[in-house]
Amino acid sequence: MMVDERWMRLALEEAKKAFLKDEVPIGAIAIVGDEVIARAHNLKETNHDATHHAELLLLQECARILGRWRLTDVTIYATIEPCIMCMGAMSHARIKRLVYGARDEKFGGAHSLYQIAHDERLNHRFEVEEGILADEASQIMKDFFKRKR
Amino acid sequence: MMVDERWMRLALEEAKKAFLKDEVPIGAIAIVGDEVIARAHNLKETNHDATHHAELLLLQECARILGRWRLTDVTIYATIEPCIMCMGAMSHARIKRLVYGARDEKFGGAHSLYQIAHDERLNHRFEVEEGILADEASQIMKDFFKRKR
Repeated sequence: MMVDERWMRLALEEAKKAFLKDEVPIGAIAIVGDEVIARAHNLKETNHDATHHAELLLLQECARILGRWRLTDVTIYATIEPCIMCMGAMSHARIKRLVYGARDEKFGGAHSLYQIAHDERLNHRFEVEEGILADEASQIMKDFFKRKR
Repeated sequence: MMVDERWMRLALEEAKKAFLKDEVPIGAIAIVGDEVIARAHNLKETNHDATHHAELLLLQECARILGRWRLTDVTIYATIEPCIMCMGAMSHARIKRLVYGARDEKFGGAHSLYQIAHDERLNHRFEVEEGILADEASQIMKDFFKRKR
């Protein structure tokens, strides 16, 4: 739990980087053992690419760094519940565990709309934990959308 | 219909390129108006990246070429029913239409496991047509997995 909060703080730092770029402020980091191997934040507007969510960029960065597609030793910390696309990507990459902060009722694929990590028809299931530093993760989102209006 | 078959032949050519690289033989192309703007095939093993499905690479290539994340004028032809990740990506990119060949009962996110394009909770829905040159698309998959065994 303390460890989860420590890593989630780094994911929140990534979310803040996105905020400063006028991107929806979502961040994610990847851990192997006791080491951060990759960090990413949402870059959809900056890169003009709808797939450039923090988590998808993170998975692609992990693959580049590790030189393999099976990420069975990787735990991902994401500030907000990942969407369907990103949950599908985590399933393909066979990640070990996902920890996220606040739920996303509109797009969430881990709990809200779908439960991709626990779909028994898929050939990889993984542990999901939610609610770590959720208030901070959702506050930065609220601040962002308030400024947008 | 004739037009759909004509484009699907190009997607099948991409699938054949994947086959020759010892990749699961799935191909996809992107059309705007009457023009092919991007082609892609599965490169998961070659690139050591679980996200490098034909359709996801295609969407990222479209974004690069067009310089925008909204692909509302793009029709995608894929030889096999796209997975959950790729369907989520198409939804985010707001594509116009998806045409695919054969169903994928194990991973399909357009019909088989989920119906992402028609989920009324998501903020983009798009037309999906299946069955175009389905026999050819599934035959190349069968040939591939037969050789693998």
